[in-house]
Amino acid sequence: MRVLFAAPARLWDAWSPALRAACPEMELCRQGDPACFDALIYAPGYPEDGRVLDFTPFTRARVVQSLWAGVERIVTNPTLTQPLCRMVDPGLAQGMVEYCTGWALRAHLGMDRFAQDGVWRNQLTPPLAQRRGVTVLGMGELGRAVALALAGLGFRVAGWSQSGRPVPGIEVLAGDALPQALNRAEILVCLLPDTGGTRNLLDAARLSLLPPGATIINAGRGSLIDEAALLAALDQGLGHAVLDVFRQEPLPPEHPFWTHPQVTVTPHVSAETRPESAAHVVAENLRRAMRGAPLLHLVDRARGY
Amino acid sequence: MRVLFAAPARLWDAWSPALRAACPEMELCRQGDPACFDALIYAPGYPEDGRVLDFTPFTRARVVQSLWAGVERIVTNPTLTQPLCRMVDPGLAQGMVEYCTGWALRAHLGMDRFAQDGVWRNQLTPPLAQRRGVTVLGMGELGRAVALALAGLGFRVAGWSQSGRPVPGIEVLAGDALPQALNRAEILVCLLPDTGGTRNLLDAARLSLLPPGATIINAGRGSLIDEAALLAALDQGLGHAVLDVFRQEPLPPEHPFWTHPQVTVTPHVSAETRPESAAHVVAENLRRAMRGAPLLHLVDRARGY
Repeated sequence: MRVLFAAPARLWDAWSPALRAACPEMELCRQGDPACFDALIYAPGYPEDGRVLDFTPFTRARVVQSLWAGVERIVTNPTLTQPLCRMVDPGLAQGMVEYCTGWALRAHLGMDRFAQDGVWRNQLTPPLAQRRGVTVLGMGELGRAVALALAGLGFRVAGWSQSGRPVPGIEVLAGDALPQALNRAEILVCLLPDTGGTRNLLDAARLSLLPPGATIINAGRGSLIDEAALLAALDQGLGHAVLDVFRQEPLPPEHPFWTHPQVTVTPHVSAETRPESAAHVVAENLRRAMRGAPLLHLVDRARGY
Repeated sequence: MRVLFAAPARLWDAWSPALRAACPEMELCRQGDPACFDALIYAPGYPEDGRVLDFTPFTRARVVQSLWAGVERIVTNPTLTQPLCRMVDPGLAQGMVEYCTGWALRAHLGMDRFAQDGVWRNQLTPPLAQRRGVTVLGMGELGRAVALALAGLGFRVAGWSQSGRPVPGIEVLAGDALPQALNRAEILVCLLPDTGGTRNLLDAARLSLLPPGATIINAGRGSLIDEAALLAALDQGLGHAVLDVFRQEPLPPEHPFWTHPQVTVTPHVSAETRPESAAHVVAENLRRAMRGAPLLHLVDRARGY
């Protein structure tokens, strides 16, 4: 089986060993005659000259397997007639739990107050039980996993989702209760997807509902937060923002988030698909494609995901 | 009931409201005629003029309740004939879990590589499953709680204790297996007490067994680590040390730990007894003393704790 790695070159070193280990029978190539490939492993940003990929010459390809969960940048490509599969990576939720828990604890413990200046500031951290708590916006697979992990550590956790569908062990507030969900959030973890309903959800009015000194951790989508409103809120009592996702990525070097003392920028590392676990999903789907078995995580082109 | 707060003045603001709330029938005093007090609430550093406290004139005191778990600085006082009780604070283990988990995640996530300099360094964190893991030295009440919390988050945890007594859910290595316990520890959490057997346990030879780039988190006792050997090890491949406990506290401003780029000093905040929870332990014991009931956590003077 000959497979084209149709992804930006910077991904090669991290992905090719894991893919080859998971699927030793595969010949993984970075280029070649399109008509020779049995499958494509795809990530946005390919080809790197900025052209839109033309899938027409890949006449033999039985599947286009996306490396990422989101396929919004390829699903509308009119030349793509081959079956498209998105990534569902079991490593993703674990990474999200680690990221959100780690930054929530950093905020809770006030790690950044320990200046290394020789002054012994022996001030206690308020116990978790005294805090107003953590609210997790978004109760999908990732939000649920993060909420349960935080609750397991002793955080007082509430979830919020449009539907308010119950999650065992977590109090979930629904649509209209967003003000209450924000008002109790000393730490606010954002794990909502980018939809018409979530864009600029955190605007000036909603940001003002957070308690003074609150920390926002956004690991969902950059579009959730009105950037100008966030910068204004940080000047007016909001404590800190840890941002992993942005409207434009990479975040431009001149963006004010980089230098704002109350903003920590991380370069979209919270929810990266993990080669080690995702390569097994790729291998399984390539094998299914070769033997004509039903593909996993096949994209519904009409629905778009 | 009249009670003397026999503790350094700096503790008054944090402790007196919690103590009065937990025990409203108590008249809590900062001074007065020793013969008038029914009990003493004690912490080392009192009296603040450096004299050794003379318990002889406290003829009416039915109990001396320590605010701290460790009573080594008072148990040998020959004038202390009143019953002495140590603190067993349920808030302590929770605080230790938060501290050790938070700093372990900070090391795991490599939070400190995210310089806020406008450069997008989109490098993945290795998943927890790929790490050599975390070793917790000391499997007492605190070590067990921390080990279980870390394991619950997905860390590969091993414990080590002299006895190797089993802990459900955690692999515990015994005495002789210390080299193996160190060799697998990308993160080493130290929660051992200060005894003849643990002093300078982490010397140059043992520190050299840690994998390159390892992080040490010491929230046990400062005496566990040979300081000069630690500084040398940091120059020779050891990654980072997060130190909350020191041979001398407060850590002197001129101590090299403060300015070493691979050392983070925190001012003994990991395992502070929490007034909110500990005050209830004090209240219960004061009431027991007043009605002549058996005291909780009574110190065995021969054994020393």
